[in-house]
Amino acid sequence: MALGWGSVMMKLGLSRLEASDHASVVSINIFVTLICACIVIGHLLEENRWMNESITALIIGLCTGFIIRLATRGKNNSHIMVFSEDLFFIYVLPPIIFNAGFQVKKKQFFRNFITIMLFGAVGTLISFIIISLGAVEFFKKMDIGALEVGDYLAIGAIFSATDSVCTLQVLNQDETPLLYSLVFGEGVVNDATSVVLFNALQNFDLVHVDATVLLKFVANFFYLFTSSTLLGALTGLLSAYIIKKLYFGRHSTDREVALMILMAYLSYMLAELLNLSGILTVFFCGIVMSHYTWHNVTESSRITTKHAFATLSFIAEVFLFLYVGTDALDIEKWKFVSDSPGKSLGVSSILLGLVLVGRAAFVFPLSFISNLFKKSQNDKITFKQQVIIWWAGLMRGAVSIALAYNQVFGLMTKPLIYFLLPPNSKHLTRSLSVSSEPSSPKSFLSPLLGNGQGSELEAAQCIPRPTNLRMLLTTPSRSVHHYWRKFDDAFMRPMFGGRGFVPFVPGSPVERSVPEWE
Amino acid sequence: MALGWGSVMMKLGLSRLEASDHASVVSINIFVTLICACIVIGHLLEENRWMNESITALIIGLCTGFIIRLATRGKNNSHIMVFSEDLFFIYVLPPIIFNAGFQVKKKQFFRNFITIMLFGAVGTLISFIIISLGAVEFFKKMDIGALEVGDYLAIGAIFSATDSVCTLQVLNQDETPLLYSLVFGEGVVNDATSVVLFNALQNFDLVHVDATVLLKFVANFFYLFTSSTLLGALTGLLSAYIIKKLYFGRHSTDREVALMILMAYLSYMLAELLNLSGILTVFFCGIVMSHYTWHNVTESSRITTKHAFATLSFIAEVFLFLYVGTDALDIEKWKFVSDSPGKSLGVSSILLGLVLVGRAAFVFPLSFISNLFKKSQNDKITFKQQVIIWWAGLMRGAVSIALAYNQVFGLMTKPLIYFLLPPNSKHLTRSLSVSSEPSSPKSFLSPLLGNGQGSELEAAQCIPRPTNLRMLLTTPSRSVHHYWRKFDDAFMRPMFGGRGFVPFVPGSPVERSVPEWE
Repeated sequence: MALGWGSVMMKLGLSRLEASDHASVVSINIFVTLICACIVIGHLLEENRWMNESITALIIGLCTGFIIRLATRGKNNSHIMVFSEDLFFIYVLPPIIFNAGFQVKKKQFFRNFITIMLFGAVGTLISFIIISLGAVEFFKKMDIGALEVGDYLAIGAIFSATDSVCTLQVLNQDETPLLYSLVFGEGVVNDATSVVLFNALQNFDLVHVDATVLLKFVANFFYLFTSSTLLGALTGLLSAYIIKKLYFGRHSTDREVALMILMAYLSYMLAELLNLSGILTVFFCGIVMSHYTWHNVTESSRITTKHAFATLSFIAEVFLFLYVGTDALDIEKWKFVSDSPGKSLGVSSILLGLVLVGRAAFVFPLSFISNLFKKSQNDKITFKQQVIIWWAGLMRGAVSIALAYNQVFGLMTKPLIYFLLPPNSKHLTRSLSVSSEPSSPKSFLSPLLGNGQGSELEAAQCIPRPTNLRMLLTTPSRSVHHYWRKFDDAFMRPMFGGRGFVPFVPGSPVERSVPEWE
Repeated sequence: MALGWGSVMMKLGLSRLEASDHASVVSINIFVTLICACIVIGHLLEENRWMNESITALIIGLCTGFIIRLATRGKNNSHIMVFSEDLFFIYVLPPIIFNAGFQVKKKQFFRNFITIMLFGAVGTLISFIIISLGAVEFFKKMDIGALEVGDYLAIGAIFSATDSVCTLQVLNQDETPLLYSLVFGEGVVNDATSVVLFNALQNFDLVHVDATVLLKFVANFFYLFTSSTLLGALTGLLSAYIIKKLYFGRHSTDREVALMILMAYLSYMLAELLNLSGILTVFFCGIVMSHYTWHNVTESSRITTKHAFATLSFIAEVFLFLYVGTDALDIEKWKFVSDSPGKSLGVSSILLGLVLVGRAAFVFPLSFISNLFKKSQNDKITFKQQVIIWWAGLMRGAVSIALAYNQVFGLMTKPLIYFLLPPNSKHLTRSLSVSSEPSSPKSFLSPLLGNGQGSELEAAQCIPRPTNLRMLLTTPSRSVHHYWRKFDDAFMRPMFGGRGFVPFVPGSPVERSVPEWE
């Protein structure tokens, strides 16, 4: 009985001071402090072209990791981090991808949807095959232990998927909207591809590939892609419907914001529960929420959600890079490197080469195919853009050292963009793209900027469009958009709200923006 | 080597699907869904006086817990929750307390500061002594196993601390500002007291109490209180200074919001690291941030932080009650009850009685002492208010079943307020309190409403104050406030910003409130 009491006591109060594991308190303190430092330093270095919060975070993380290794040299288990990969997939990734969906330029994204699907599905598959075959070819000759067929395929699957988080850091949606939507979109779609690949690796007999297996594989991909997308869209629509029906805003902004955050998160977790692609789901949930739900809430909620989502994503990104930096010096992870440094270098170089070849093998052919279906010169992917897509897509492996390692590629992508698409010629294009038929040197750049600029101009100034722009409206993707608009206005928006379709409640949508509390 | 590769593989990709522990995914799904349900149902039931989100959450939690127990009856380990108390102290509690500090009516709080300190420190101590002595007296006679002196003292320490989270649910800052600030303030301050008590239990020889031990105890309390408060205030001031100096807002609202959230959280975690009272620290950090930092950021950041903090706190509260509801049916926790139901009932009744007596033993005497020092009739705590303070303070033990059990008291506090301070007489007072000398029956109520109302009127209408209000300005607490204002305006605000002391940067403080993205 005394024991019973003791445990109740522990439960109730005494544990209060003991239970919060000292190690996790220490690591939270270190990480929160470091994130603050990254934000301040990143802000101070903002003028610098080479630096941003991510790279600051990576460097600070590396230094911290180094100091911690030095300080805890005596101990064998030198992890300050009690964080696991769960942490990444459950807490860090969802806000980043959701915010990307929430803030994505939807028109740009859906106009390039087929190209994105080509890259994300077919491209990743091509890359997977080339890397797997290459790994078999090269690694069999090297003496790196007995790898089975499954291992080679796993290498192929891992290194064929690009990383969408890195893309967000390196490419800018406003400066290079086409590149951003292609590379980021590919990163989102190929999450579904890699889920299917891993399922296939576990369940199919991939040694004897025949038509049935391939068919199964394709069917699996379409099932996964469709169901993930639908789940995200439905969750988004449900949130829009609830908020529209119940007039939350008349009572409480906080309820609206809470419901948006929770339902977005729920979409991701449901997808994980059902073994779907959480990334695809939460991305489409973000798109739907920004199209419907966001317009159904009060003015305060709109400002709050916009900035709160961006802030959460921002913190998650900084944390991720910091974590990867700290983790990069993990001794155990590098043990197999120190065993035989020459061999490891060889393996790394071969992998890098395979990734480069595998990526080249689909970016250029698929871009060519995609260009065949584009009638307007403006919508085609130029060769220079193809080079950037090829290069920017090298970034992969967000969780592991791979990121620290590959951030190098990220670092080199920005200068590549500057080199291939110099900013002063961008300014030239910006002034020329609408008013005149693009001449040959600018034709490389105008599709990059023309679209984004065009729609902004459209909205802001309502200039009568020149004939060549009107011509653009006749292209197929435009007409899909046209029919979607019609459907949206006739059926979806009256049902789920959205811009201009929220019933006016006096005093409701526009709250006093300055709070009255002292 | 193959093993080395395997682990890298696990690290990189295959683990992606396996690692996220299925159980935690399931429980997150359940809880997020239930929180959404609570918000919607709480919204629908808002008109109902007896229901709010917390009680809905508690009931839904109980039902869910029941269903889960039924579904997993076969299994011994029927926890769906992988959450621990760490979860509570590291993630759930900080946003709730911080938001309370951020939104507290500062004038009201500091005017009653001495009374709050009396209740939180001296009162808790009185309660602790009475409950401990009573436990020794009664439990020795019952055959409930061998309890040591330390156990009795632990019982006293646990049951003498009120719970600040419950107060937030039951008392309303706008309706009953005096009661709210007294009961909630007591809850915040007695966190420091209970930390000191637990330290004392572990380190001091409490069997032979002499003057040295008492002195040590008092010194310990003042050290803990001062250092916790200072840590919170300094973190808040640091955030104000950084944001003011670096003009974050000119560049990014998200950085400002991120920095505010992170530094608030850092203050709590630092306090936990240093074994201070995290609750006190983060509460004062909230107060300082709302007084300085909040005025240094852009308009968008102000709206975002106000609602984001409130939303986080709201979600945390709903989650807490839901969790307590689910947890209440935990079989192991009730095992000692089922062993001897009669005895358990006896123990519970005795404890309840002791808590009631212990609380009465300080609320009424201390209120009397506090009233002696108040010159104005309006500032005194009436007997009816004392009864409510006594009763509302019965809520305690947020983490454990105790909450589920004590929410009953919360349920009964609202009707008690209605009974003792009926709303229609409140309305009477509202119209009378400023314009006329309070007559005898309304004098009970006017201090409750007069202050809050007065300051709002002051700000909004600038009515020339009647003489009896001017007289109030001569009371001591008013003059402390006067000198603080002077000091604040002369030194603090020019340094750390705050209302009206942010240098005007064209275009900076007022951003476009409607975002331009589609």
